[in-house]
Amino acid sequence: MLIGKQSWQLTNRPAILSTGVAVGPFEGKGKLAHEFDIIYDELWMQEDSFEKANRLLIEDSVKVALSKANKKQEDMQFLLAGDLINQITPTSFAARSLQIPYFGLFGACSTSMEGLALSAFVVNYDGAHMVMTGASSHNAAVERQFRYPTEYGGQKPPTAQWTVTGAGMAIIGTSSAEMKQQPVVTAATVGKVIDMGLTDPLNMGGAMAPAAADTIWMHFQDLGLAHDYYDCIFTGDLGMIGRPAAYDLLVKKGFQLPQNKFQDCGLLIYGDDQKVASGGSGAGCSAAVLYSHILNEMKRGTWSKVLVCATGALLSPLTFQQGETIPCIAHAVAIEMQ
Amino acid sequence: MLIGKQSWQLTNRPAILSTGVAVGPFEGKGKLAHEFDIIYDELWMQEDSFEKANRLLIEDSVKVALSKANKKQEDMQFLLAGDLINQITPTSFAARSLQIPYFGLFGACSTSMEGLALSAFVVNYDGAHMVMTGASSHNAAVERQFRYPTEYGGQKPPTAQWTVTGAGMAIIGTSSAEMKQQPVVTAATVGKVIDMGLTDPLNMGGAMAPAAADTIWMHFQDLGLAHDYYDCIFTGDLGMIGRPAAYDLLVKKGFQLPQNKFQDCGLLIYGDDQKVASGGSGAGCSAAVLYSHILNEMKRGTWSKVLVCATGALLSPLTFQQGETIPCIAHAVAIEMQ
Repeated sequence: MLIGKQSWQLTNRPAILSTGVAVGPFEGKGKLAHEFDIIYDELWMQEDSFEKANRLLIEDSVKVALSKANKKQEDMQFLLAGDLINQITPTSFAARSLQIPYFGLFGACSTSMEGLALSAFVVNYDGAHMVMTGASSHNAAVERQFRYPTEYGGQKPPTAQWTVTGAGMAIIGTSSAEMKQQPVVTAATVGKVIDMGLTDPLNMGGAMAPAAADTIWMHFQDLGLAHDYYDCIFTGDLGMIGRPAAYDLLVKKGFQLPQNKFQDCGLLIYGDDQKVASGGSGAGCSAAVLYSHILNEMKRGTWSKVLVCATGALLSPLTFQQGETIPCIAHAVAIEMQ
Repeated sequence: MLIGKQSWQLTNRPAILSTGVAVGPFEGKGKLAHEFDIIYDELWMQEDSFEKANRLLIEDSVKVALSKANKKQEDMQFLLAGDLINQITPTSFAARSLQIPYFGLFGACSTSMEGLALSAFVVNYDGAHMVMTGASSHNAAVERQFRYPTEYGGQKPPTAQWTVTGAGMAIIGTSSAEMKQQPVVTAATVGKVIDMGLTDPLNMGGAMAPAAADTIWMHFQDLGLAHDYYDCIFTGDLGMIGRPAAYDLLVKKGFQLPQNKFQDCGLLIYGDDQKVASGGSGAGCSAAVLYSHILNEMKRGTWSKVLVCATGALLSPLTFQQGETIPCIAHAVAIEMQ
C-alpha cells in the first residue's frame, strides 16, 4: 500500500526465507569472510571470462539460498535481479540456466534494494508464493568495462571505491504466524534521481550521498517514524567520503542520528589492511552484506529493526565522455525481526 | 494475484489512462505515422548526441501522456522504464529531469511489457494511484553501440531488423466504474529465458520466436482461456522471420489461431516501401505501436481484447564475441476495453 509520497507499507510482512552469498578471493580476506557461503580462491572461478564468473556467482548464490530453504528452482515464481555489466548479461544468462520467469532490473548499485522492494511488494499481494531476488558484481569485469582492465595497472585517487566481487540472493516468501526469528520486509521507499552536478566517476560516494540522504529522509517522512525507530541504518556503498557526507546532510535536515547507528556496507566488507581506497562498492556489495552479515546479526539479536538504503550511480562511460554529471538514486527497504 | 505458474490476474483492472508516443523521421514516414503524437524531422532532435535524443524522446512522450490526462509529473508515484543503451542512461537521465521516483528496468525489447506488467500489478494493489511506464530506442544510438555507426554504411542480411527511433509511455492508474471506453490491464504473463542455440545477432526475430511462443502458450495455460479469447495477439518485434516461426510453434503445440489474429508490431510500423529488411525492432517498437495504434484501434472498436507479447534478445556485443548463443525472453500483457 502506498504510504506518503514514494513508500510502500507491507502489512503482510513478506519474509526473507533464505539467502545465499558467493564472493571472490579478496572479499574472502575481508572482515565479513566468516559470513559468506562460498568464497572463490581466484577471480576466474574456472570460467573463461570474468563476465561468466559473474554469472556463476549468481547461480551459486541462488543454489545456496534454495538449498538452505530446501526448495527447488521450480518453487520460485519469479527472479528479480540485475548487475552492472552492459545489458545485465550475467544475470540474464543466469536466468537462462535457472529457468525462473525473470524481471531484469537496472539500478546500478541500488539494484539490490530495487529488487527487494519489488519482490516484497509482489509477495505481499499474492503475486507469488516465493521469488528470488538479488544483485551481483565482479571486480575485474566491472573494471575493464567502466575504467581500464586491471592488468593495465591504472592508478586511482583515494576517493575511488573497490568493486565487490560477489553476489547476494534471497528468497522472499509469504510469512506465517508460526514463523519465529525470521526477518520480514515491512516497508520500502523508492528513490528519485538526485544529481548535485558532480562529474568525477572516481568519487561515486560523494555523488551518491545526497540521493541516500533524500531517500532516507523521505522514508521517515512517508512513514511518520521517530528518528530512533531503527536500530541501525545501512547505506549501500557510500564509502569513506560518501557516508559522512550523507550523515551531515541528514543532520542538517534535523535528523537525530547517532554516528554508530549509521553504517555503510562499503565500509563493512573489507579489512583495514585491504587497500580499497574509500571502501567497497558494486551492485554485489549491499546484496552480499545484507544477505549475510546484517541478517545474521539480526538473527543473533544485535539489531531487530534495520533500514537498508542501497545507492546507485546511474552514469556510464559514455555519459562521462559526453560531459554529463552523475545522476544518482537510492532505494530503502525496512527489515524487522518477526 | 498469481494464477497458474507465471501469470497475474489483475481483478481491479488498472487502466491505461493516457499515452504519449514520440518518434523519429523514418517512423514518421511509416504506416502508423498518423497515430503518433510527435514526429521529429531529423535524428539529432537538436541534441548533441543520439543518446541525448533518445532521452528527449522519453521526456517528450511522458509530457504528452501527462498533458492528455491533464496531470503533472508530481501526480505520478513511480516511473518504471528502460531502454537499450548501456546502463539504460537515456531513461535514467529522463528520470533525473522528470523527478519521478524510478525503477530502472532492462529486458531489451521486452522492456515495454515488463514495465506494463509491473506497473499494472503495483496499481492493482494500491502501491500507487498513478505510475508512468514505457520503453524507448533510438536507431543511430543503438546501431553504433550494438553494430557499427550508421555512417560506416555496413550491409545487413535480409533477416536483420531496423531499430525503431521512438518512445512510448503510458499512465497506468486506478480504474473506476464510471470510466467507459478505457483500456484496462486484466492479466500478465512473465516469461522465462528461452535459448534455442541461435547465434546470429542479425536474425533476432528467429531467435526470439520460441520465447514468444512459450510465453503466449503459458498465458493461455495459466489463465485457462479459450484459444479464440483475444481478438488479436500482437508480438513485440519478431519481424518477417520470427512471426511465422512463432506462429508455427504455437500451431504445433495445438494452438488454434487464425493468421490474421496474430500480428507483429515490427511488421506494422513501417511502410512496404521502407527498406527495413525483416521489420522493425527495438525497445521503442512495441511501446510506440501499443501506446498509439493498438489502443487507438481498441477505442475505435476494432478489437476489444488483445494480448501484447513483447520479445527481447538478452545478448550484448560482448556475449556475442565470447561465442555465446542468444538468450531470449517475452512478457505478455492482456488489455481489454472496460
